[in-house]
Amino acid sequence: MIPEVNADHVAAIEAQRKNRGWKGYIVTNANCSAIHLTLALKPLYDAFGIDAVLVTTMQALSGAGYPGVPSLDSLDNVIPFISNEEEKLETESQKMLGGWSADGGFAPANFVLSAHCNRVAVRDGHMEAVSIRFKQPATPDEVIEVFESFRAKPQELGLPSAPPQPVVVRREKNRPQTNMDRDTHNGMASVVGRVRECPLLGTKFVVLGHNTIRGAAGASILNAELFKVEGLLPV
Amino acid sequence: MIPEVNADHVAAIEAQRKNRGWKGYIVTNANCSAIHLTLALKPLYDAFGIDAVLVTTMQALSGAGYPGVPSLDSLDNVIPFISNEEEKLETESQKMLGGWSADGGFAPANFVLSAHCNRVAVRDGHMEAVSIRFKQPATPDEVIEVFESFRAKPQELGLPSAPPQPVVVRREKNRPQTNMDRDTHNGMASVVGRVRECPLLGTKFVVLGHNTIRGAAGASILNAELFKVEGLLPV
Amino acid sequence: MIPEVNADHVAAIEAQRKNRGWKGYIVTNANCSAIHLTLALKPLYDAFGIDAVLVTTMQALSGAGYPGVPSLDSLDNVIPFISNEEEKLETESQKMLGGWSADGGFAPANFVLSAHCNRVAVRDGHMEAVSIRFKQPATPDEVIEVFESFRAKPQELGLPSAPPQPVVVRREKNRPQTNMDRDTHNGMASVVGRVRECPLLGTKFVVLGHNTIRGAAGASILNAELFKVEGLLPV
Amino acid sequence: MIPEVNADHVAAIEAQRKNRGWKGYIVTNANCSAIHLTLALKPLYDAFGIDAVLVTTMQALSGAGYPGVPSLDSLDNVIPFISNEEEKLETESQKMLGGWSADGGFAPANFVLSAHCNRVAVRDGHMEAVSIRFKQPATPDEVIEVFESFRAKPQELGLPSAPPQPVVVRREKNRPQTNMDRDTHNGMASVVGRVRECPLLGTKFVVLGHNTIRGAAGASILNAELFKVEGLLPV
Repeated sequence: MIPEVNADHVAAIEAQRKNRGWKGYIVTNANCSAIHLTLALKPLYDAFGIDAVLVTTMQALSGAGYPGVPSLDSLDNVIPFISNEEEKLETESQKMLGGWSADGGFAPANFVLSAHCNRVAVRDGHMEAVSIRFKQPATPDEVIEVFESFRAKPQELGLPSAPPQPVVVRREKNRPQTNMDRDTHNGMASVVGRVRECPLLGTKFVVLGHNTIRGAAGASILNAELFKVEGLLPV
Repeated sequence: MIPEVNADHVAAIEAQRKNRGWKGYIVTNANCSAIHLTLALKPLYDAFGIDAVLVTTMQALSGAGYPGVPSLDSLDNVIPFISNEEEKLETESQKMLGGWSADGGFAPANFVLSAHCNRVAVRDGHMEAVSIRFKQPATPDEVIEVFESFRAKPQELGLPSAPPQPVVVRREKNRPQTNMDRDTHNGMASVVGRVRECPLLGTKFVVLGHNTIRGAAGASILNAELFKVEGLLPV
Repeated sequence: MIPEVNADHVAAIEAQRKNRGWKGYIVTNANCSAIHLTLALKPLYDAFGIDAVLVTTMQALSGAGYPGVPSLDSLDNVIPFISNEEEKLETESQKMLGGWSADGGFAPANFVLSAHCNRVAVRDGHMEAVSIRFKQPATPDEVIEVFESFRAKPQELGLPSAPPQPVVVRREKNRPQTNMDRDTHNGMASVVGRVRECPLLGTKFVVLGHNTIRGAAGASILNAELFKVEGLLPV
Repeated sequence: MIPEVNADHVAAIEAQRKNRGWKGYIVTNANCSAIHLTLALKPLYDAFGIDAVLVTTMQALSGAGYPGVPSLDSLDNVIPFISNEEEKLETESQKMLGGWSADGGFAPANFVLSAHCNRVAVRDGHMEAVSIRFKQPATPDEVIEVFESFRAKPQELGLPSAPPQPVVVRREKNRPQTNMDRDTHNGMASVVGRVRECPLLGTKFVVLGHNTIRGAAGASILNAELFKVEGLLPV
């Protein structure tokens, strides 16, 4: 769950409790690459509709945990494979952008997503190169406008860990960069840049996000802050 | 010019001499990313036709020359921008895969190519993640078969610097890797791996190549070896 | 000048003004390697006297400024040379540990220091391996006790940027490490570890410090904070 | 055992066989840091005598084997500790430079050695900063002359894997560098540079060597080549 994207999926907790006879409930974080991709896709999905997405990731070593990747596999190297990562990215994004209803369950968003996942020699921060075809065409300026005006439930509720903007746009031609921008808004924002036309799909850009903050621990905290406001935490 | 791809473009030298009143001639290498992408595309283009390509590169520091990229911009970083690189990649590949005729000049191959270019912290070796839509659909096994059976003029002529195979396919799920595979056939081959279905364009794979050997100095040498056989070098 | 080490050198400002007919004055930071070495040596010098020091540094890329070291010289490399650095380290440390008097000028501390300076692939943080011969022998425990009880003028005055302890001792066998410990006390402390016997000189340890914070900008700020208290800043 | 240093220790094999009732025998390689230090010390020991050595190493990741050092501990980091490495370096060097006699066993060379061992982010190649006090003083030029004229049994016998010179001297002020020089003579030589006066011990220099070639597998091969000539290999 990502509070900016599918806060309404909280309603599924009721069904989970009922079906399993639970008092408590389990809510999981999304995959760390999927979180930042989905944060960037959400305002575009709402504004233009999405038909197709092709994403190539350059992911941080910390995403593999500790001890994780041996240094001899990391130094002076790119590994174009992360076990199960492409599958997760290709399914979780649609699920998070989709809806949930008490009778129908989860209804994934209806678009095609193809992912190439790579491990590169950075400590933290997943960089993702995205090409996208909208249902309703949009210029780069319109895309930037939609990114920058995006606000969602965590911002409206003023949750303590919520970034003031979920998606920050850099306009310099060579930004965001992993080392310089991964800590934007304490690592809780997704940082987009290089929004431009794609000769194949219409629009392309890069999105960068901190994988162990917004992509992991920070995501859990923001979820908990939302649940508290929603009355879902034990007093 | 790439001898395995467009050896017939040598015929353009005659026109160049005539138009400019030269005795000599100038033949240029392709861009270092375009060389390896084009080597991989050539047998596919001939076998299945190409409709569209989306490529995301993870390029080596040596591609920027010396002193090139400052170490503070390289360590623990990805830079999602290389000046003019996407433009070159998007135009040179079609030109090299296209034909040349004495009356018509160059006729670029007719497909759409979109590129995302990134600089990563490796010394040598450009890794490229490729999604491709063929005119005539092909399975991953058929694609691999076409890669592996590819031989061209340098192989037929037995040019001294020619790799025995222009395109080498790795079948391990996590290969090629930049550090382990960039020196394949003395850095003169392109190394392909992870050939699989792309939910969006039909086929995806990665291709890796040495940017300062096959992508630069080695390319010039192989061109010269071809010219010698063709009688285009002064005796 | 380092406020914890030679705050009394402030008296030299009076002579500087007089000799040059200045109203203002110029106070310089020490070399970034010398600052952390001297911070560690100061309490030992006062407690045991110093006879000889041998130091080998492993210095950060940021010490060379920007653009500084090309990435091709940094990745997968050690450079055992930094221009003029060994000379600075060998002279500044004695000067800072020495005294100043109105009639005699600067009187460098009287011990031998030999330095080996190396550049390694870290962004920030100079690690220094130190062997030392005291005038009055001391056990590792006594050395640790002296490091940990060290407080100086910035701590007594409670200067805003002063670290609570100028020298922090780590007792784990594999600490300090550059990446984990360079930010100790906001990068304003020197971090010592591996205090043990040296078969040759009696005592050995490592000291790590942040070269662009305490080693540069932070040093200037702390100096200015001291000058304000001393009435040396214009109101 | 290092053929250039203690080829006469082969005589200990006879005692080993006798004492243990073996037909075969076991000969071990030295520690990878000790091999290159000892190769550099050997000609100096013979020419000037050695009184004291202080060495600080900057060792490669491959020295820790595979998977070895996690990438998160290597990237942008120096680790000033390698388990048991300082102890090995402090004892093996004297043993190898010492003698062996049938009645007295091993007699270690009689000098003091102190080691600081560090792990840095290089793939292969141990760089070692050495300060040394000779019994009989020598100028840097005399030291260089001794390094360059050093030849030993593997060179005299023309063993196939023997480097033409065991110790190669670089005279540029910023060499050897790990990345540029570790492969000198196919990684079988030790490369020395920056030979200069040490204000404390008299002489200082750096020595670099390939830890997995001369420091490991290559050392075993050279030993075997010597044993073959000595008639110690089964026919």
